[in-house]
Amino acid sequence: MSTLNVAVIGVGLVGKEFLNQLAFVGASDLSSRRIRLIYASNSKRALREDSKGLDPASCSQRLADGEGEEVALAELPRLLESTIVDRHRTVIVDNTSSDYVASLYPAFLQKGFDVITPNKKAFSSSLKLYNDIIFASRFKEGGKYLNESTVGAGLPIIATLRDLVASGDEVIKIEGVLSGTLSYIFNEYSTPLGEGPSFSSIVAQAREKGYTEPHPGDDLNGADVARKLTILSRMIPSLRSHLPEGYKSVSITSLVPDALASVTSGDEFVARLPEYDAEFEKLREEAKKEGKVLRYVGVIDVQAKVVKAALEKYPANHAFATSLQGSDNIIAFHTKRYSPRPMIVQGAGAGAAVTAMGIMSDLLKLL
Amino acid sequence: MSTLNVAVIGVGLVGKEFLNQLAFVGASDLSSRRIRLIYASNSKRALREDSKGLDPASCSQRLADGEGEEVALAELPRLLESTIVDRHRTVIVDNTSSDYVASLYPAFLQKGFDVITPNKKAFSSSLKLYNDIIFASRFKEGGKYLNESTVGAGLPIIATLRDLVASGDEVIKIEGVLSGTLSYIFNEYSTPLGEGPSFSSIVAQAREKGYTEPHPGDDLNGADVARKLTILSRMIPSLRSHLPEGYKSVSITSLVPDALASVTSGDEFVARLPEYDAEFEKLREEAKKEGKVLRYVGVIDVQAKVVKAALEKYPANHAFATSLQGSDNIIAFHTKRYSPRPMIVQGAGAGAAVTAMGIMSDLLKLL
Ligand SMILES: NC(=O)c1ccc[n+]([C@@H]2O[C@H](COP(=O)([O-])OP(=O)(O)OC[C@H]3O[C@@H](n4cnc5c(N)ncnc54)[C@H](OP(=O)(O)O)[C@@H]3O)[C@@H](O)[C@H]2O)c1
Ligand SMILES: NC(=O)c1ccc[n+]([C@@H]2O[C@H](COP(=O)([O-])OP(=O)(O)OC[C@H]3O[C@@H](n4cnc5c(N)ncnc54)[C@H](OP(=O)(O)O)[C@@H]3O)[C@@H](O)[C@H]2O)c1
Repeated sequence: MSTLNVAVIGVGLVGKEFLNQLAFVGASDLSSRRIRLIYASNSKRALREDSKGLDPASCSQRLADGEGEEVALAELPRLLESTIVDRHRTVIVDNTSSDYVASLYPAFLQKGFDVITPNKKAFSSSLKLYNDIIFASRFKEGGKYLNESTVGAGLPIIATLRDLVASGDEVIKIEGVLSGTLSYIFNEYSTPLGEGPSFSSIVAQAREKGYTEPHPGDDLNGADVARKLTILSRMIPSLRSHLPEGYKSVSITSLVPDALASVTSGDEFVARLPEYDAEFEKLREEAKKEGKVLRYVGVIDVQAKVVKAALEKYPANHAFATSLQGSDNIIAFHTKRYSPRPMIVQGAGAGAAVTAMGIMSDLLKLL
Repeated sequence: MSTLNVAVIGVGLVGKEFLNQLAFVGASDLSSRRIRLIYASNSKRALREDSKGLDPASCSQRLADGEGEEVALAELPRLLESTIVDRHRTVIVDNTSSDYVASLYPAFLQKGFDVITPNKKAFSSSLKLYNDIIFASRFKEGGKYLNESTVGAGLPIIATLRDLVASGDEVIKIEGVLSGTLSYIFNEYSTPLGEGPSFSSIVAQAREKGYTEPHPGDDLNGADVARKLTILSRMIPSLRSHLPEGYKSVSITSLVPDALASVTSGDEFVARLPEYDAEFEKLREEAKKEGKVLRYVGVIDVQAKVVKAALEKYPANHAFATSLQGSDNIIAFHTKRYSPRPMIVQGAGAGAAVTAMGIMSDLLKLL
């Protein structure tokens, strides 16, 4: 059994937790001889070790303390290559949200490195980059890429869709609440009772709790949901090339009021959002009259080739209304086999611990 | 890339569908050179091919037509071995419910064959057999066993639990409706309204629809749920050796009235079940008074080391009451990370197509 070398790029919230889990897995006597950490970096510095492997538990502290070599971004590929001894047993774990790192995947894969990542960029941007990744991974000695944690964090969503497709099931529709932030906001805002605090006050509250990006517009614009939809769509053969510009080709209903689109300060955005409460109130009222609730969902209708991120109404007895709570994600796979009732996966879809678990589950597949 | 040889034992409902899916996967140009069917048998006959592989699409018909060699059960191991060229790239797919075939796994694994199966027997019987399987799979050149489809058919349950445990999460409680038959019966029998047709009439109806075993007592006795609980429990380190006699060590509430325990005819069982409707009616009434519904569930309480298959009451707004329909399964993983709200997986948990998909998903892991 040969050793699997692990190179980690990015030790932020998720990266740090991933290293903790790696320390746990590495500690089990079964695995300790099987995994070796050879590289760990943030945007400025890198730790690397040729001989006996780095200690996962201490890397993030060491980098925070300013240890390691300074790394200019463009040097990353060269540095990694000079570090890596056996490239066919090396996985690069990208825990950044960097477009630049994502753009390196085709080269990594072509050289035989595997890539595991929670970073949505590579799979939800231009079709060109995505095609390059697929192409490189199919090289005779090409590496594999695994991205379970890009959608729903640790929830088994990517693997499930892959199995459905690969075993010959026919996906009819995928529908889900794919943003933890928007799940929280609408679970609070729109209940079957149809009343409660104003939209802006709930957004402000969510921001205080740390559930939103620093600028809540980055959640409300629907781009994150559209990226996840792009990742899922491209796994379905008939939609493989359907979104040439990636998430930008998705039909997106943005919840950012037009007049606030250019507000770059999160504080100002939140301060001015109350001006638009009446508009949201009208939607809530309408839904209530129909016995429905509002949910911001992603929908992939395979036959109609419609991929959209939108605010939709669901009956009060629908799973998206009854069983969804907090900032949980929920996703329903309607397929030929899972019919008339879909397969449903539900649970926390963000957070460092569950995201790192998604990365670990990919890593365990490589072992 | 070397070829993966597949040997199929059992071509009943699930086995036949598995061969169909194998034909589908094998047809894709990526995979056609990677999978080869070398053996397919029912309880009486076997087809085998040394050179170019069997055609998955025609095997079940050929066996039904009486083609192939006669096979005495005890010859199976010898026959397989003489068929198999490269045992380190051979997976044995057991689509029977046979205890005998299950008892062969340790020998298969020790010789380096992988085993994939929807057959619960090996993992839910004596701890001795289970230990032998684990031991053999850890041999230096030992094969791997994969049993995703033993619990929830194609639903991602086993893989999810494995990832939770392996990545260092702490399982607190697993709770679910794990029998499609009992799901259907209680979804029909016990709604928040608390009234409706009698218990016996729903059982009779379920039987007519083909949802029950020929003898409904084989569903109502809870043994199938207890087997699934055993499989899950043994994956949790602290419960690894907790059930020495397997499903027989589980605390089981049987719904078979004592007086009918010895009735061996399914017809007689159904004819006499109405005598016990009043007892079930009392339970339904009680639940209704508390604003609850009845569900037959499996529960694994890790801290308390309680593993039970039992009829329990759930509030009308609980996911087991609101979002469960038809004969679907639902399972909730309460863990340290998935807390306070559990991860939930839901959907059809039986049926040939989804069970075969679970087998395929295991096979794709080996590829
Ligand atoms: N947090 C979640 O709940 C969640 C859920 C699902 C997916 N994700 C995804 O997981 C990824 C990481 O999220 P996070 O919350 O951990 O972000 P984060 O806390 O901002 O951490 C990002 C890390 O990447 C490093 N980095 C950025 N650009 C780099 C470069 N070019 N080279 C090397 N290192 C670089 C940063 O270094 P510095 O410290 O030097 O800036 C930092 O260590 C993102 O793609 C995110 O979308 C997160
Ligand atoms: N059906 C479902 O929805 C479902 C769901 C989850 C799991 N499962 C599991 O999947 C397995 C198969 O179920 P099924 O519904 O396909 O059963 P089935 O229709 O009864 O088929 C069983 C097959 O196994 C063969 N067989 C039995 N003993 C054998 C032996 N010793 N050697 C070789 N072949 C043998 C039978 O051969 P003959 O035809 O000659 O009798 C038959 O082809 C069972 O373990 C079941 O618990 C089923």
